[in-house]
Amino acid sequence: MKAYTKYLTFHTENRRDYRNITEEISTALAESNVREGLALVSAMHITASVYINDDEDGLIADIDEWLDKLAPMRPDYRHHQTGEDNADAHLKNLLLHHQVLVPITDGRLTLGTWQQIFYAEFDGQRSKRVIVKIIGE
Amino acid sequence: MKAYTKYLTFHTENRRDYRNITEEISTALAESNVREGLALVSAMHITASVYINDDEDGLIADIDEWLDKLAPMRPDYRHHQTGEDNADAHLKNLLLHHQVLVPITDGRLTLGTWQQIFYAEFDGQRSKRVIVKIIGE
Amino acid sequence: MKAYTKYLTFHTENRRDYRNITEEISTALAESNVREGLALVSAMHITASVYINDDEDGLIADIDEWLDKLAPMRPDYRHHQTGEDNADAHLKNLLLHHQVLVPITDGRLTLGTWQQIFYAEFDGQRSKRVIVKIIGE
Repeated sequence: MKAYTKYLTFHTENRRDYRNITEEISTALAESNVREGLALVSAMHITASVYINDDEDGLIADIDEWLDKLAPMRPDYRHHQTGEDNADAHLKNLLLHHQVLVPITDGRLTLGTWQQIFYAEFDGQRSKRVIVKIIGE
Repeated sequence: MKAYTKYLTFHTENRRDYRNITEEISTALAESNVREGLALVSAMHITASVYINDDEDGLIADIDEWLDKLAPMRPDYRHHQTGEDNADAHLKNLLLHHQVLVPITDGRLTLGTWQQIFYAEFDGQRSKRVIVKIIGE
Repeated sequence: MKAYTKYLTFHTENRRDYRNITEEISTALAESNVREGLALVSAMHITASVYINDDEDGLIADIDEWLDKLAPMRPDYRHHQTGEDNADAHLKNLLLHHQVLVPITDGRLTLGTWQQIFYAEFDGQRSKRVIVKIIGE
């Protein structure tokens, strides 16, 4: 069994941002020389997510609005008594989940036609990391 | 390490549907000859989910109603400006997540008593695929 | 490839409870002798979750309140016609997801600074199990 580990760093301009990282994950897979296995893509922070969906600007705006409706920015979270102001970002992370697992077949990410891997930032404007852990043969 | 890949295809009668696929996954595991490892069950579409929960009709109706309350069908999503009408199906996919990972022990899916694997369709009436990727020994 | 399986049992005093289980998972990893691989931590019940986030009491109370707002306890779920009273616990399980996959690097759980692994109970006061399945080398 081979194991390959790579860390990606993202620093977004906006507090909330959505970035298609499929190509970065394909590059990591090529570096790993794994032909059959699994690629875990996982945020190392608790205010950012990794998810798979469509790369369509209207839909991304719909997702952002929907997340902020179900897990709104608000001043009165208990977590803010610690001096933080980002409780909504923790809830958005839980809603969207922080990781995906991508099957690897014949040396390629086995994704459906419209499946793209996204990094979703909910408390950005600073450097944050994603781990890519690939295992297989 | 062994790796086994199988594609399942589902074509539902209704736009939204919930199907217990535990037996299909058990069959794939038997074909793989893996005794210890992990089975990834992952939708290859961005308007369908795979989840684990109880196979009880009342609960499934509760889940469907709940998903449509939190991620409702509505005409005015931005995504619909592309000609699509299924933005709610994308949001339901994100809410329920598109994949589960099932542990394999002694050649069997290691599930709790009430845990059943479901394919959840949110934009059906056409053929859609799920990948089963099994790795182990 | 090595595979290591461990079952953890939790019995909470309250119906809903949140417990940091990071140390139990680290112990399981040490027992496995795996240096590079993946650790799956997965609830074997359909009314409990495993998630990763911050161990801060205010935030945990915010998460609990948020879950009960989006998936409220209510008498009138269809599932309750079976004699059950815990449909909300099923919905909370789906919202928070029942499993996480933790990368293992150099024999350690590769978690971000603030990432802690939690068991979230939504229908407790009885013994329930979590499986830890570690594969790698």
